[in-house]
Amino acid sequence: MSLIQDLNWRYATKNMNGETVSDEKLTAILKATNLAATSYGLQPFTILVVSNKEIKLKLQEAAYGQAQVGSSSAVLVFAVPLKITTADIEGFINLVATTRSMPVEALDGYKGMILGTVGALPAEQQQIWSAKQAYIALGTALAAAAEQKVDACPMEGFDAAQFDEILGLTEKGLKSVVIMPVGYRSADDATAKYIKVRKLESELFHFVK
Amino acid sequence: MSLIQDLNWRYATKNMNGETVSDEKLTAILKATNLAATSYGLQPFTILVVSNKEIKLKLQEAAYGQAQVGSSSAVLVFAVPLKITTADIEGFINLVATTRSMPVEALDGYKGMILGTVGALPAEQQQIWSAKQAYIALGTALAAAAEQKVDACPMEGFDAAQFDEILGLTEKGLKSVVIMPVGYRSADDATAKYIKVRKLESELFHFVK
Repeated sequence: MSLIQDLNWRYATKNMNGETVSDEKLTAILKATNLAATSYGLQPFTILVVSNKEIKLKLQEAAYGQAQVGSSSAVLVFAVPLKITTADIEGFINLVATTRSMPVEALDGYKGMILGTVGALPAEQQQIWSAKQAYIALGTALAAAAEQKVDACPMEGFDAAQFDEILGLTEKGLKSVVIMPVGYRSADDATAKYIKVRKLESELFHFVK
Repeated sequence: MSLIQDLNWRYATKNMNGETVSDEKLTAILKATNLAATSYGLQPFTILVVSNKEIKLKLQEAAYGQAQVGSSSAVLVFAVPLKITTADIEGFINLVATTRSMPVEALDGYKGMILGTVGALPAEQQQIWSAKQAYIALGTALAAAAEQKVDACPMEGFDAAQFDEILGLTEKGLKSVVIMPVGYRSADDATAKYIKVRKLESELFHFVK
């Protein structure tokens, strides 16, 4: 099945039936998400995968009671670092060197570039930048879930401060930016039948030939 | 071929061979991109598809000379509105009503919610929010290109003000936020052989069971 078919199949599922997504399918979704592109390859985010029933219900309350949170199999919580430190960037550079079996010094120019751009931003700007990278991964995760015929709902409508408290994110140096419950649509989810609304291609795309 | 295989195949292509991506493949990439999820379904962005050779070369200059811009088949420029107006939101509500054959009044609550949240943000915050939505579409576009075996390179490294000037974006009420040249890798692009670097799954994902 092609990506276009998968994306046409998916929709923002507003209520799920509580069925568990198998480890195999969840792993496939997470593996694809880890393969998402990010600027410099830095992957400046952590993804919490919350399947604990009690915690999901607390998160549902902090998401204005929206049913897809508590009735999901797991809630993916995309969280970004409060600050990207020099140590974070050096850790990434070491990962590149190790993965590619090259001396870390060969990456000095690359490291300098990251330190001089993203590394030099104020914390708030770093958080925005990191969130944008996380949204690339969210786009990938949504496609991956659809390929697995797992329902999902990307959500910004939640109280991030409450999520951070419930999940202990602040003390880990993180903050939640967007969430994505995964599971299986409930038979009574009326939104499943809604026609997908998208801009006309002639409006979304401008060709400069 | 699965999404994971597609994502493993792709890499940030640093030089392309100038070959043209067929209309069929480009259309498939754009169709998938249009199907990307966005908050409220608002799709607050326009995507310029620049295949004009002279303009691509100007964009390459404004992207610090990076070869993948000029040697691509087309450059996708993701641009967000400088301001999301009430008219924009009403236009979207009309699109929903028309697509779903429902009276526009039935969407008054939904319209009020969008006006009261995104519509009420200062322009700068709207631009950040819109950019995040565009990054979901970027993640989708990258997956779609990989499925078509079309190379691509997501790029933040360009002079956005110069891009806006070359493409006349400001007078259209838009600004460029991220770009994605598409085409075919050049035989001499050394980065094609680099091992992909990604975080360990145990580092990227935290399970709350």
